[in-house]
Amino acid sequence: MPSSSTERPATPISAETFDVRFPTHETLAGSDAMNPDPDYSAAYLRLNTDQGAGHGFTFTIGRGNDIQVAAIESVVAQLAGADIDVLLSDMGQTWRRLVHDSQLRWLGPEKGVVHMAIGAVINALWDLRAKRAGQPLWLHLATLSVDELLSLVDFRYLTDALTVEDARAILTSAEPGRAERIAELQRVGYPGYTTGPGWLGYDDDLLAKLCREAVADGFAQIKLKVGGNLSDDKRRLQIARDAVGPDVRIAVDANQRWGTADAITWMRELAPYDIAWIEEPTNPDDVLAHAAIARALAPMPVATGEHAANRVIFKQLMQAGGVQIVQIDATRVAGVNENIAILLLAARFGLPVCPHGGGVGLCQAVRHFSFFDYAAVSGSMDGRMIEHVDHLHEHFVEPLEFRAGRYLAPSVPGASTEMRPESLQQYRFRS
Amino acid sequence: MPSSSTERPATPISAETFDVRFPTHETLAGSDAMNPDPDYSAAYLRLNTDQGAGHGFTFTIGRGNDIQVAAIESVVAQLAGADIDVLLSDMGQTWRRLVHDSQLRWLGPEKGVVHMAIGAVINALWDLRAKRAGQPLWLHLATLSVDELLSLVDFRYLTDALTVEDARAILTSAEPGRAERIAELQRVGYPGYTTGPGWLGYDDDLLAKLCREAVADGFAQIKLKVGGNLSDDKRRLQIARDAVGPDVRIAVDANQRWGTADAITWMRELAPYDIAWIEEPTNPDDVLAHAAIARALAPMPVATGEHAANRVIFKQLMQAGGVQIVQIDATRVAGVNENIAILLLAARFGLPVCPHGGGVGLCQAVRHFSFFDYAAVSGSMDGRMIEHVDHLHEHFVEPLEFRAGRYLAPSVPGASTEMRPESLQQYRFRS
Repeated sequence: MPSSSTERPATPISAETFDVRFPTHETLAGSDAMNPDPDYSAAYLRLNTDQGAGHGFTFTIGRGNDIQVAAIESVVAQLAGADIDVLLSDMGQTWRRLVHDSQLRWLGPEKGVVHMAIGAVINALWDLRAKRAGQPLWLHLATLSVDELLSLVDFRYLTDALTVEDARAILTSAEPGRAERIAELQRVGYPGYTTGPGWLGYDDDLLAKLCREAVADGFAQIKLKVGGNLSDDKRRLQIARDAVGPDVRIAVDANQRWGTADAITWMRELAPYDIAWIEEPTNPDDVLAHAAIARALAPMPVATGEHAANRVIFKQLMQAGGVQIVQIDATRVAGVNENIAILLLAARFGLPVCPHGGGVGLCQAVRHFSFFDYAAVSGSMDGRMIEHVDHLHEHFVEPLEFRAGRYLAPSVPGASTEMRPESLQQYRFRS
Repeated sequence: MPSSSTERPATPISAETFDVRFPTHETLAGSDAMNPDPDYSAAYLRLNTDQGAGHGFTFTIGRGNDIQVAAIESVVAQLAGADIDVLLSDMGQTWRRLVHDSQLRWLGPEKGVVHMAIGAVINALWDLRAKRAGQPLWLHLATLSVDELLSLVDFRYLTDALTVEDARAILTSAEPGRAERIAELQRVGYPGYTTGPGWLGYDDDLLAKLCREAVADGFAQIKLKVGGNLSDDKRRLQIARDAVGPDVRIAVDANQRWGTADAITWMRELAPYDIAWIEEPTNPDDVLAHAAIARALAPMPVATGEHAANRVIFKQLMQAGGVQIVQIDATRVAGVNENIAILLLAARFGLPVCPHGGGVGLCQAVRHFSFFDYAAVSGSMDGRMIEHVDHLHEHFVEPLEFRAGRYLAPSVPGASTEMRPESLQQYRFRS
């Protein structure tokens, strides 16, 4: 049975979970140097209350999605007996209650399966809260007071880089103009870039065709997977450059393939192709290696974050100069609250945030943070864009509106995380 | 049902898992500043083959042990259809097969629940292999060739600090004298230190009594939990110092309580009590904070590692000068292979390894690494000792032999990880 419910009769919350897996390995969409045959999956949660439902999930790539579902069920069980209104009214406290549960914490701490499960639960609560407020999540966050935003962030382990006072100064200085930037976002949206052409499993003709289509679709940046074979990478970069012309940026992504020395050697070979950034050159925990790679390859920026386990890793990457492009992910860390902490860290260090999209529903979920960031945190779109992969969007209730290389502002109340009931049923995994 | 078996009929392996929880919160043994009421638990695995059984587990502190069990079951399922002799004959390849499974890897990578589950499976395989060899694990490892030891280690992400050649040089230079050091270990054992007196939940009289007993029992070092309240810490350190006299070392453990500035301020207050080391001053992912704390508090050593997620974090702690005492844990990383990598890193940086004991069966399992390290890696006992907590040992088949402050050399074939069937049944968790 995919569903469970909390045990105490007093609780107004019940939870249903779903192990959802799409057989994406059949098309090699999503293939890269480290992930040759992913089955894009979601460990999916529906929180039912007497005043509507909230939806959250963790993205995985297949095997192990069952573990993630089990973890979400255990985390939800911690909320047995809780009053949903109390949980939603102080989401800072709710986050601390789950993340600091001393026994669950041992299984991380603050990383991996349990941390991502907490993220799914926290995100489902935010979906519910935004729906109740009648606002899309980004707008809901962008209309909170500075004090309430600060209350959402756990500053323990951050204060050597970002104090409460630093964060207050960032948010306060972005208060003037919030309304105007919100209106601008609703009018013109936010820039995206596309990873669609560049999967490692695609042949040269398909690569060239998709590159030309990306330009025609209005994208100012594309991204290619690299790290399998150096001469292949050079050939594919030349094909892509010929197809997109000199003005469209080309980023590359190694998906953690290398050690420090290999990353530097390989990327020096690719530098002549005018690389917008090198993404995930090495292990995502390796702050010092990222810093060494960034120093060696400067001015080529290093991008990372989709596998950064928590705000402490992000903080160090910024302190050490190991990241120039901050790639937050909607389901890797412990949900909305922790991503707000990371946006504040990025603002503190003056670094652009270019969120990780793709997978199952990541574009839907993560775009809210860029819209919120522009409205209420950094106040800037310079060098910032959201990854776009045109894939599996049809399984979500709310359409993903994207036009001429830009994400349109979400307008439906909630966090855009609700999957269609038919998709949940059709792709439910049966082991 | 606590048991599962792999599905394909060809496999000679079947697996049973157990969610084992001891109600230790009733005594406050194990209480510290971050873990006020742990229920020491094990997500336990028995691998059955037609030539004996292997046993492995992950230590947890209660809630979430069910998640860990589910993860172990998923990892074991990856071995369906495998030939056990092939798995055991090339444990380097077996480790890579599990750790580099691209789909499971997404759930870490290499950290948290899935990584620890792989550790439980790898350790169970090593238990089985050592039993077949008729040797205790440490001796089995200490009699492998240099080439075979090197084949067990994954050097990806390590080579900026430790190359294969570096590791070969370390192991080769320790080859002369291996036999003599093995005989010495079998004769005199290996030093331990005790954490028994210092749990935060104990009152002053019990603290003083246990300190005096520790001295009488021959311990040269004790350890106290700190970080709850500064004046309490000072009073308890004075009580302990009065009880043990000037020659017994006193280490303290903050269990990740602080940010960087608080750690430095607090520990400067405690420095006059002659502190042997400060353990886990802050978040275990925070390499840069550990380095800043170590610089500020020098010459007081910083100890950490029981929560370090993998060899990449250990490597960075050493590179940055964030750790002076390396505390490996038997069940946090991906098993025997990864702990050998960490022993080699420590030898490369000239740092002493003082393993984390306590919990459920951690003393039993982790002592093998110190014995192996002395025989075949560092060749030194200087400044090295194994944590000892006299707790829950009765649930293991093999007695933990400890006398006059020293661990005696394990002599029973295997990894000392087999729990008594009666204990597995009596403490099986029923949700």
